[in-house]
Amino acid sequence: MSRSIDLAVIPGDGIGQEVVAQGLKVLNAVLPQDVKLETKEYDLGAQRWHRTGETLPDAELEALKGHDAILLGAIGDPSVPSGVLERGLLLKLRFAFDHFINLRPSKLFPNTATPLAGRPDIDFVVVREGTEGPYTGNGGSLRTGTPAEVATEVSVNTAYGVERVVRDAFERAAARPRKKLTLVHKNNVLVYAGHLWKNTFDQVAAEYPQVSTDYLHVDAATIFFVTQPERFDVIVTDNLFGDILTDLAAAVTGGIGLAASGNINPTGAFPSMFEPVHGSAPDIAGQGKADPTATILSVALLLRHLGYEAEATRIEDAVSADLAERDGATTRTTDEIGDALAVRV
Amino acid sequence: MSRSIDLAVIPGDGIGQEVVAQGLKVLNAVLPQDVKLETKEYDLGAQRWHRTGETLPDAELEALKGHDAILLGAIGDPSVPSGVLERGLLLKLRFAFDHFINLRPSKLFPNTATPLAGRPDIDFVVVREGTEGPYTGNGGSLRTGTPAEVATEVSVNTAYGVERVVRDAFERAAARPRKKLTLVHKNNVLVYAGHLWKNTFDQVAAEYPQVSTDYLHVDAATIFFVTQPERFDVIVTDNLFGDILTDLAAAVTGGIGLAASGNINPTGAFPSMFEPVHGSAPDIAGQGKADPTATILSVALLLRHLGYEAEATRIEDAVSADLAERDGATTRTTDEIGDALAVRV
Ligand SMILES: CC(C)[C@H](C(=O)O)[C@@H](O)C(=O)O
Ligand SMILES: CC(C)[C@H](C(=O)O)[C@@H](O)C(=O)O
Repeated sequence: MSRSIDLAVIPGDGIGQEVVAQGLKVLNAVLPQDVKLETKEYDLGAQRWHRTGETLPDAELEALKGHDAILLGAIGDPSVPSGVLERGLLLKLRFAFDHFINLRPSKLFPNTATPLAGRPDIDFVVVREGTEGPYTGNGGSLRTGTPAEVATEVSVNTAYGVERVVRDAFERAAARPRKKLTLVHKNNVLVYAGHLWKNTFDQVAAEYPQVSTDYLHVDAATIFFVTQPERFDVIVTDNLFGDILTDLAAAVTGGIGLAASGNINPTGAFPSMFEPVHGSAPDIAGQGKADPTATILSVALLLRHLGYEAEATRIEDAVSADLAERDGATTRTTDEIGDALAVRV
Repeated sequence: MSRSIDLAVIPGDGIGQEVVAQGLKVLNAVLPQDVKLETKEYDLGAQRWHRTGETLPDAELEALKGHDAILLGAIGDPSVPSGVLERGLLLKLRFAFDHFINLRPSKLFPNTATPLAGRPDIDFVVVREGTEGPYTGNGGSLRTGTPAEVATEVSVNTAYGVERVVRDAFERAAARPRKKLTLVHKNNVLVYAGHLWKNTFDQVAAEYPQVSTDYLHVDAATIFFVTQPERFDVIVTDNLFGDILTDLAAAVTGGIGLAASGNINPTGAFPSMFEPVHGSAPDIAGQGKADPTATILSVALLLRHLGYEAEATRIEDAVSADLAERDGATTRTTDEIGDALAVRV
């Protein structure tokens, strides 16, 4: 394990700056004395785009490549046309650094408000494919803006891309106590992509007899997310279904204030990137109202990825304990939550 | 208004037969004496496919065209490869009869179990596009079954198709007390299709100043479905997002046992088709356990479509009253629920 971490930090837009500051605070607090942490901040996002028209210049993409990992706050602002920053910055990073594992754990922590009656026992992980599907930017429009317009979006799925994420999900499932993996797709309608996913899943399953498997259509999966979320252990799914399901998962486990994610390239060829699932929330930006917990839990995923397992667990345990003991009646500021967790770790 | 109804009935697979029988029972009970009801049953679905290899022969498609409307139970069986019946029968009907409005009301009836704490006041309608998007069957695979396979799915969106469904949704929103319409898409990623949808929506909105409008990404929409479903009045969305959202909507409003739908061609050029949102549920088929309410509520949508507004409302009121007064502890059979509702209307 390297005893230094060279971290790129992209605070981004809206509440990004605030939550990232708390993530770094907790990271500093949890790291052993002998680990040297270096951080370099990158000024990317809406303000940069307004100033220079740039989303992610080649030079910065190249510079980012040199870091051990990336911590990202949030990207997106209503002042920028929809898609510009998402495609030009966030997705560009995920694709350029081949982040084929988009890892999104969902856990109902003690004492958090779930909209579900009966507080089911929720503890699952979504392994979302991160480099294919309808996110490839393949598509276009013809006779744009006329009554004869045709616009297409192409979902691209390859055996190469599907197999590597399915394998990763089987590995993760095999390492968990319940050892259960659910494939979510829509293979009764999206028959070509669905066939590739299902076939690959069944083939890899043969190598993991200890993992029990299951298949659900995405529409049915949303039903189980609210009626029987305890049935899930690990879920593997495509990029778009994963996007939708993980927001729903965040909602049922107490809100996107707590949902962490990692955009991971397990080969180590490129730095992996860790970010909260939530967006930039411009409506509450700069007011100290944002919950930094999702970012702090993303820092735990980052540490685990870099081999600091004990430190990652310390952060997760601190979040658990902090939520269990907090006084639900008092609203804490972004800073106060960060301080509380920095003290605990 | 025609005082006769010539109805095609496709019971289909699994519980389809049972629930359709109750739908017809209630239809017979609610119709005024002078309305002549003729029904013709079509033997389509898994059994037919096993027997003859046919899903929907041209002659039957032609014959179906002659009816005033179609009542469908459920399509799909594990003994048939995924996609064969869905694409070859159900979607074939929706596309052949140009059912561009897939209408799916969601209402939390009294005394029904919702998984949501606090029983929010839910009463919205999803207007799902029914003839485009990722459902067009455009796509394919290359080097199928090899490690070099590529599989694509193409979402096709036209100004023609988007405008007509958006217009219909504005009309529906304008006719409701709250007059609110939410567009759901993912225009920060699916930029071509998203741009067409958003632009069309904004243009048509200018003609409906009395309707307040709103846009949500599909992932965010799932969050609001569980945390704030009362914010929705009418939702318009694409075929796939509508599929996912309406299953989730059904789940939060007491389950797919209650969710009705209409595949509507408002021009009258082809018969419209009404069906419960739920599937064929082979695990409980033939046991009298299926809840026929979704089918019975689909019959109400069918009657409204054919101009029998008073009768449609009578069915909906009967369902409301029946649920409000039922003894939650007793489980009723499919037949008993049908009988109870037939008596009430
Ligand atoms: C902002 C957007 C491009 C992104 C996505 O769709 O992946 C977000 O919703 C997420 O889940 O990380
Ligand atoms: C069975 C399937 C093809 C269908 C769909 O995806 O439209 C169903 O899920 C529905 O919602 O009616």
